[in-house]
Amino acid sequence: MSGKENKVIIGIDLGGTAVKIGIVNRAYDIIAQTSIPTDAARPYEQVIADMGNAAAGLLTENGYDFGECLGVGVGSPGTVDSKNGVVLYSNNIRWDHVPLAAELKKYLPLPVYINNDANCAALGEVVKGAAKGYRNAAFLTLGTGVGGGIIIDGRIFEGGHPGGVELGHMKNGSEGRMCTCGRTDCLEAYASATALIDDAKKMAVWHPESLLWELCGHNLNRMDAKMPFDAAEAGDRYGKMLIENYIRHLADGMIDIVNIFRPDIIVLGGGVCAQGENLTQPLNKYLEENCFGASVSYIPQVVTAQNGNGAGMIGAASLVEPEGYSS
Amino acid sequence: MSGKENKVIIGIDLGGTAVKIGIVNRAYDIIAQTSIPTDAARPYEQVIADMGNAAAGLLTENGYDFGECLGVGVGSPGTVDSKNGVVLYSNNIRWDHVPLAAELKKYLPLPVYINNDANCAALGEVVKGAAKGYRNAAFLTLGTGVGGGIIIDGRIFEGGHPGGVELGHMKNGSEGRMCTCGRTDCLEAYASATALIDDAKKMAVWHPESLLWELCGHNLNRMDAKMPFDAAEAGDRYGKMLIENYIRHLADGMIDIVNIFRPDIIVLGGGVCAQGENLTQPLNKYLEENCFGASVSYIPQVVTAQNGNGAGMIGAASLVEPEGYSS
Repeated sequence: MSGKENKVIIGIDLGGTAVKIGIVNRAYDIIAQTSIPTDAARPYEQVIADMGNAAAGLLTENGYDFGECLGVGVGSPGTVDSKNGVVLYSNNIRWDHVPLAAELKKYLPLPVYINNDANCAALGEVVKGAAKGYRNAAFLTLGTGVGGGIIIDGRIFEGGHPGGVELGHMKNGSEGRMCTCGRTDCLEAYASATALIDDAKKMAVWHPESLLWELCGHNLNRMDAKMPFDAAEAGDRYGKMLIENYIRHLADGMIDIVNIFRPDIIVLGGGVCAQGENLTQPLNKYLEENCFGASVSYIPQVVTAQNGNGAGMIGAASLVEPEGYSS
Repeated sequence: MSGKENKVIIGIDLGGTAVKIGIVNRAYDIIAQTSIPTDAARPYEQVIADMGNAAAGLLTENGYDFGECLGVGVGSPGTVDSKNGVVLYSNNIRWDHVPLAAELKKYLPLPVYINNDANCAALGEVVKGAAKGYRNAAFLTLGTGVGGGIIIDGRIFEGGHPGGVELGHMKNGSEGRMCTCGRTDCLEAYASATALIDDAKKMAVWHPESLLWELCGHNLNRMDAKMPFDAAEAGDRYGKMLIENYIRHLADGMIDIVNIFRPDIIVLGGGVCAQGENLTQPLNKYLEENCFGASVSYIPQVVTAQNGNGAGMIGAASLVEPEGYSS
């Protein structure tokens, strides 16, 4: 008996718009949650005070005192110095060298761990989710950008200095597309949901005879990442072209990841992963055919994430007891 | 006092043509060495018997008994299962699941460690060489292919399964060049010495007015990787084009490595690194301008390897006491 059976963990998902705060139990189920606006333009001390007070309140409301809480994990956008608990830089919330862990301890007298949000989501899928039971996993989230995380031997892999494991910023395509990072042709510029939507908009304009133009109601502002998949499934040739191109670029990025990290499994998160097997089936085929040493080396399966809307909180909570606290 | 002061290590560099065997001291100086033909077409038992007997003989000739030897490290081409001491696959020496460590112990009753040769070279530059004193380093060797190794916290990083850290097989260029791995446009297809020589041959044929055609004595078979650098330095426009293109591709691969691993330092090995600052100066400039989060993240310096012809043996030896055995 470890005495941890009834203890809980606080997982905080710090986003550009909202701060989502959850209490998880030993099975990483979210047993209570709340959300407050980030209002990131304020001084960071105020943002963190609100975060800390809301988390402390959530604990109390649910009948827990600090002694029953093992700790706090926070997933932050941007470049995070996890060892020192500092958010070094986040373009999203405009933070620059913010001592998040130290500041948060003023309100929550508990162990506080912070990490990049994509790293958290990766670990969350290992402690509870699509990669549960695996020791080595790669995670790619396909959203506004392409984020990623690598789990090696059950722990978040961070490289030598903060700012590594930027899996969305490996060289990928060849069209000279500008990437948000200032370089051209990164994976993010081809495999983010943003990139897919941009491509679909162009295709709809160039080919108004395509189903894409109809699906968006002749209004490009309504185009989303699902429409090109829907068009492809309906047999529209332009939709098919978009999806084939999208999957080829994404697969190329994944092959880079396999050739470097050889994970047990690759988990895809973000809105695009709602496509399920429409996405994973061709990706798995591409990987089998193109990874280095294909026939003599281990090739991981590609699957979709399972933690859904709670992924950020579960992932953040997993920082506290990364090996699981059920034993 | 650890009692290791006068002990030695055997480092074995298993190559396609020759097996180089060295004895190193606590400073990783090679104090004795020999070389035998690999003759890899024979059964692997014979190759390993010759290797083991030659190493045992070298020890004896130099006045050491097994009790004075801390262990044996072997660097092998190909995909190596370092945990189990097995060479899983090597195209170079045509080995398939060869239990190298177990077999070698028949002749050398010592701890035996094996790893991929590029991983060994990377660790060798950390224990003695261009990355000495650093805990995190990336190593790229530019030769027939592009090999690589990553050192994280003083240890070889191997990923989840054997066959990872294939740094030469990340997506790089956009010409559709076939890579030896079966994929197109890998870093190796643009940044190996082989690729540079192929490009120089084409350029010399297309532009016989260029210095390249003169430097190779009007004989493409004599073209080597130094000639395009020499032509560029002499002001030849085609030589300059080749080198600019080569460095751009190499830099792009290095930026991928920085964005993923954030090492303290990047070490370049292989024949091309004889170019020294002609190579590292533009690479460092490119990295400063193009790495993710450039101004707010750590950017490593690019330097050339220092272990020269002994790199394979020193690197292999470093497997035995990776943290150094001087303490």
